[in-house]
Amino acid sequence: MTTNSGPFELQPIGRVRSPLVDPKSAPKQGYEGSPDAWIDFDPAILEGLRDLRAGSEVIVLTWLHRADRSVLVTRPRDDPAAPETGVFSTRSPGRPNPIGLHTVEVVSIDGPSILVRNLEAVDGTPVLDMKPVLPRA
Amino acid sequence: MTTNSGPFELQPIGRVRSPLVDPKSAPKQGYEGSPDAWIDFDPAILEGLRDLRAGSEVIVLTWLHRADRSVLVTRPRDDPAAPETGVFSTRSPGRPNPIGLHTVEVVSIDGPSILVRNLEAVDGTPVLDMKPVLPRA
Repeated sequence: MTTNSGPFELQPIGRVRSPLVDPKSAPKQGYEGSPDAWIDFDPAILEGLRDLRAGSEVIVLTWLHRADRSVLVTRPRDDPAAPETGVFSTRSPGRPNPIGLHTVEVVSIDGPSILVRNLEAVDGTPVLDMKPVLPRA
Repeated sequence: MTTNSGPFELQPIGRVRSPLVDPKSAPKQGYEGSPDAWIDFDPAILEGLRDLRAGSEVIVLTWLHRADRSVLVTRPRDDPAAPETGVFSTRSPGRPNPIGLHTVEVVSIDGPSILVRNLEAVDGTPVLDMKPVLPRA
C-alpha cells in the first residue's frame, strides 16, 4: 500500500551537461537562445530510453535545486517593473516544489547521453523524467 | 548551499477531489472524457494562486502515488497488443519518478479550491505544482 500524504522522494535519473553555468545569464525560456545541451542519464534506466528518436519533441522535467521553495509571489522574468504575481501563474523557478518543465528537441542519442535543443537549465541540473509531447485534443 | 545529488523531497500543495476513484476506469488522457474535478489546495499556499483566472489553461503536476516506480518498459494504454515501449516514450503512470502532467482548464475558483476540466487523476491524488501554459516559440 502506498500513501498519498507525503513527503515523496525523488531520485534523479540523469543530469544536465550544458555550457550554461550561471542561472542569472541563462535564458528565461528554452526557445530564447539556449545552447544545445546533453542530458547524461543513469545507465540503470537505459532501457526506458530505447524508443527515443532524434528529431522528436519531448518534455523534460528537472529539479531546480537552487530554487527558493518559500516563494509564493514573484515578479515575472526577474523584472523589477513587473507586477507581483502569484507564483502558480508564472514559470518562476522559485516555488514550493521547484520542478522545471522544458519542451526540447532530441538532436542525437549516444547510449545514455542525449543531446537536446532548447534546454535552458544550467549545468548539473538533476533530471527527473522525460515524456512525449502529446497531440492536443 | 543546496545539493544536486538527491534524493529530493516533495510536499504536496493540494489534492484532487474527483468522482474518478478507480485508476483502471479513469481515462488515459484528460481530454478523453474526464469529469470536472476539484483541486483543494493547502490554504498555506493560497497567495500563490491569486492570479489564477477562470477560463485559463494551466498545467497541473501530480504525484501518481499508486504507480510502480520500477517500470522501464511498458505497453502503452495497458493494451496487451501494443508493442513494449521504453517508458520515457510513453505517458505511463508507472515510471521511476511518477510525476503526472495534466493540461486542464480552470472552470471556477472558490478560495483555495479550484474546479478544473480535463483532469484524469483519481480522487486523492496529491498535487505538486501548477504552471501557466506558455505560448509556443
